[in-house]
Amino acid sequence: LLFATGIAYGTIASGTLPVLWGFLIALFVASGTAILLDLDDQSIRRGLFGFNAALVGTALPTYLQWNGILAGYIALAAIVSVIVTLALTRFLGTWEVAPLTAPFVITSWFATQASYGLALLSGTSLLGPPRLPLGAPLALAGLTPDTFFQGLFRGISQVYFINNPFTGFIFLVALLVNSRISGSMAILGSLVGLFTGLAFGAPGATVLQNGLYGYNSVLGAIAILTFFPLAWKSVAIAAFEAIAAAVAWAALDNFLAPPGIPVFTSAFVITTWALLLARKDLRPLPSARLAQTLLGTHQQGDAERR
Amino acid sequence: LLFATGIAYGTIASGTLPVLWGFLIALFVASGTAILLDLDDQSIRRGLFGFNAALVGTALPTYLQWNGILAGYIALAAIVSVIVTLALTRFLGTWEVAPLTAPFVITSWFATQASYGLALLSGTSLLGPPRLPLGAPLALAGLTPDTFFQGLFRGISQVYFINNPFTGFIFLVALLVNSRISGSMAILGSLVGLFTGLAFGAPGATVLQNGLYGYNSVLGAIAILTFFPLAWKSVAIAAFEAIAAAVAWAALDNFLAPPGIPVFTSAFVITTWALLLARKDLRPLPSARLAQTLLGTHQQGDAERR
Amino acid sequence: LLFATGIAYGTIASGTLPVLWGFLIALFVASGTAILLDLDDQSIRRGLFGFNAALVGTALPTYLQWNGILAGYIALAAIVSVIVTLALTRFLGTWEVAPLTAPFVITSWFATQASYGLALLSGTSLLGPPRLPLGAPLALAGLTPDTFFQGLFRGISQVYFINNPFTGFIFLVALLVNSRISGSMAILGSLVGLFTGLAFGAPGATVLQNGLYGYNSVLGAIAILTFFPLAWKSVAIAAFEAIAAAVAWAALDNFLAPPGIPVFTSAFVITTWALLLARKDLRPLPSARLAQTLLGTHQQGDAERR
Repeated sequence: LLFATGIAYGTIASGTLPVLWGFLIALFVASGTAILLDLDDQSIRRGLFGFNAALVGTALPTYLQWNGILAGYIALAAIVSVIVTLALTRFLGTWEVAPLTAPFVITSWFATQASYGLALLSGTSLLGPPRLPLGAPLALAGLTPDTFFQGLFRGISQVYFINNPFTGFIFLVALLVNSRISGSMAILGSLVGLFTGLAFGAPGATVLQNGLYGYNSVLGAIAILTFFPLAWKSVAIAAFEAIAAAVAWAALDNFLAPPGIPVFTSAFVITTWALLLARKDLRPLPSARLAQTLLGTHQQGDAERR
Repeated sequence: LLFATGIAYGTIASGTLPVLWGFLIALFVASGTAILLDLDDQSIRRGLFGFNAALVGTALPTYLQWNGILAGYIALAAIVSVIVTLALTRFLGTWEVAPLTAPFVITSWFATQASYGLALLSGTSLLGPPRLPLGAPLALAGLTPDTFFQGLFRGISQVYFINNPFTGFIFLVALLVNSRISGSMAILGSLVGLFTGLAFGAPGATVLQNGLYGYNSVLGAIAILTFFPLAWKSVAIAAFEAIAAAVAWAALDNFLAPPGIPVFTSAFVITTWALLLARKDLRPLPSARLAQTLLGTHQQGDAERR
Repeated sequence: LLFATGIAYGTIASGTLPVLWGFLIALFVASGTAILLDLDDQSIRRGLFGFNAALVGTALPTYLQWNGILAGYIALAAIVSVIVTLALTRFLGTWEVAPLTAPFVITSWFATQASYGLALLSGTSLLGPPRLPLGAPLALAGLTPDTFFQGLFRGISQVYFINNPFTGFIFLVALLVNSRISGSMAILGSLVGLFTGLAFGAPGATVLQNGLYGYNSVLGAIAILTFFPLAWKSVAIAAFEAIAAAVAWAALDNFLAPPGIPVFTSAFVITTWALLLARKDLRPLPSARLAQTLLGTHQQGDAERR
C-alpha cells in the first residue's frame, strides 16, 4: 500500500498521468489474473505479483508514448509478468533464492525491445536510441554540493523512474517511518552508489545528479538487510552490494546500448542474486547491539523474528 | 517421419537443394553420433536428437552459402546439437522441463555468428547484415486480404524456414491428418500471431505476409496442448502463448540485430519454457467435452493417455 | 604456484609491469577476503578463488590503462570474483559441474564493460572499439610455416593474455614437467584449434598467428582430461572440445563486438560446461593402456585416483 501511495503521489506530482494509468491497469490486470488462476498461497504471493506488475505498468508509459494501444500492451505485459513470476519462483526455488524484481525487468525488456518493430508503439525520448558504447569524457567541472544532494535523493526516487529529489525525500521519510532499517539502508545505498560513480569518474552533471548510480544500490542495500540477519557483517555486505550494483549499472548501461533498451533494476537483481547464492558461505550472525541501535530495545524481538 | 517427408518435399518444391543435403547430412551424422555414444534410452531420445539436428541441417544452408566446407561445418554442428541436447536435458530435468528446439537454436546461433569471422563460410542474403534497431514505419497501406491468407499459411511453412503459402497448406493438412489437436493449434497459433502483429502495427507487406509473426506461435500453441491436459483452460493458455511468442519474436528480432544473427525458434522456446515452469500453478483440468469435440468419442481415451 | 611463477615470468618478460601489479593485488585481496569470510573448506577452495582472482588481476591491466584508480578497481574486482565463485559453485553444484574460469570471465566482463561509462578508467588499444560484425576477408596469402609455429605456442601463452611464442614454449615445458597428460592436451588443443581456424578460413596473419583460435582449445582439452577418466574416448572428446571451443571463440568474438568487450575464456567455459553436463551419457571407461603410454607403469595408480 505504501508503495502504491508513493507511486500515485509521485506520478501526480511529476504531471505524468499516463504513468498512473499504466500503474493502475497493470495492478488491476495482475490481481485479476492471480484470482482467475486461483493461485495456491494467494496471501503470500499476490504481493509479489502486484509489485512486479505495478513496476511494469509504471515503466512502460515512461519509455513508450501513451495511446490506446499501449493500454492494451500494458494489460498483456501485466499477465506476462505474473507468468514470469511463477516461472522464476519455481526456477530459483532450487537454491532458495527470491525472484526480486526480475519478473519486472525481463517483461519490460521484451516489451520495450519489441516496440522497435511495432509502428503503433513508439519510444519516448527516454528510450534509446540504439548506439555503440562510447568512452565517457571526464566532467568534474560540473560537480557541486548541489549535484551531491540531488543525486542522493533522486537515487531514491529513480527506484520508481521518477527523477525528482523532493519525491525521493518523501519516499525516504515514508521508508523511515515504516522501517528504520530499510530507511537507513536506502540512505546508505544511495550514498555509496553516488560515491562509487564519483570515485571512478562517472559523468557528474548528467548521470550522477540524476541518481542513476544510486537506485540499484538503494534496492540492493535494502534487500541485503531483508534477507540477511541484522548484524554489522550484513551492513558491510550491504555496502559492498551498493558498490557492486553501481558498477554493474555502468556495465549494463553500455551493454544494452546497441539493442537500445534500459537497464531498469537488472543491476540490483544480478548482484543481489550472486550474494543470495553465496549466502551460506557468508553466514553473518545477528548482532544484538546493532538491533538495539537501529530498532530500540522493545522492537528487538521483531527484528529477530524477520 | 512426417517431418522428414515435409522438409524433403518443401525443399524440393522450393528448388533449394542445398537445404535437402544439409538436412540429410545432419540427420545421418546425428544418428551416427547417437549410436556411437551408445546412448541409454535410445528409442525415446533419438527422435529428439534427430529432430534438432535436422533443423540445424535445414537452417545452416538457408543462412550460409553452400560449398564443401559448409557440408563439413553442418556435420560438426550436428554432433554439437547432440551434445547440447544431452546437456540441456540434464540441466532442465531439474524442473521436468523439455529442451524443445533449444539445442537447434543454440547450435545454429553459434554456427551463424562464427561465420562472420570465417572467410570460407559466407552468409546468404537472409543472414544479417548487422545493424542497430530502427523504429518501424507504419505501413497499413499494403494490407489486403491476400496478406492475411499468405501470412496464415506462410506462418506454418516458416517453422521449417520455407517461405511458401502452398507448402504451409500441405504441412497443415499433414498435421490435421496426423492429429486433429496439433492441426487446430497450428491454425490457432498462426492466426493469433498474425493478429498480434497486426494489432501493434507490425510492417504488413513484408513481415506479416511472410509469416514471421506466426511460426513461433504455431510451435508454441502445439507445444502447450502437448504438455498440458486437453482442456479449455489449456486452449486459452495456448492462445496466450501465441500472443507472447509473437511479441517475443519482435523483441528478439531487434535484440539480435546488432550481432546480426536470426531469431530461429527462440521466441517459442523462451515463452514455452516460462509456461512449463509455471505449469504446476496453472494446473488446468482435462475437459471431457473438449476432447469429444476435437477427437470424437472413440478417440477420447487416447487423448487422456497423452 | 606454477601458474604464479608463469605469470610473474611472463609479465616481466613482456615488459608489462602493471600486469604483475594487478596479479599481486588481486591475489592478495582475494586471499584476504577468503580468510576474512572464514570460508569453510579453505584448503580446497582457496585455490579456485586465488586462480580466478589472479586471472582478473592479469586481465584488467591488459585491457585498461594503469593508474591508481585501476589499482582500487582491481581490488574491488578481486572481492567480486570471490563472491561470484561462491555463487556459481552453489548454482552449478546442482549438476555437479565446476565453475571453471567463469568467475573470472563474468567479473572481467562487468569490469571492462563498465569502463566505457567511467572517465577515470580508459581502455588500452586491446579493448574494443565497439563495432558491428563484418565478414572476414579470405587471407590465405599470409600463411607460412612460421604462422603455424607462432600460432601453436602463442595459443598456449594467450591463456594468460600473453602474446609471445617463447613464453608459450616455457609454459608448455612447465606443464609437461608437472603432468604429462596436461602437457599433451595443451599441444593437442592448440594444434586442433589452429587447424579448425585454418579449415574454415580464419584470417591467418593476424588472428591465427596470435594464437586466438588456440587458447580456449588448450584450456578445454586440459579440462576434459581432468574431469573425464583417462581413456582414448576422453582424448577423442578433448579433440572435439578443442574444435568446438575454436568455433565458439569466433562466434563470441563477433557477438561481443557491438558492446566492445573481450571474449576472455568464455568459449572454453561454455563448451566445457555442455560436455560436463552431458558427462553421464558420454561415460568413457578408463583405459589402462593409455595410462601406461602417458604416465608410465608406476604412475598409473595416481592417474586412476584423480
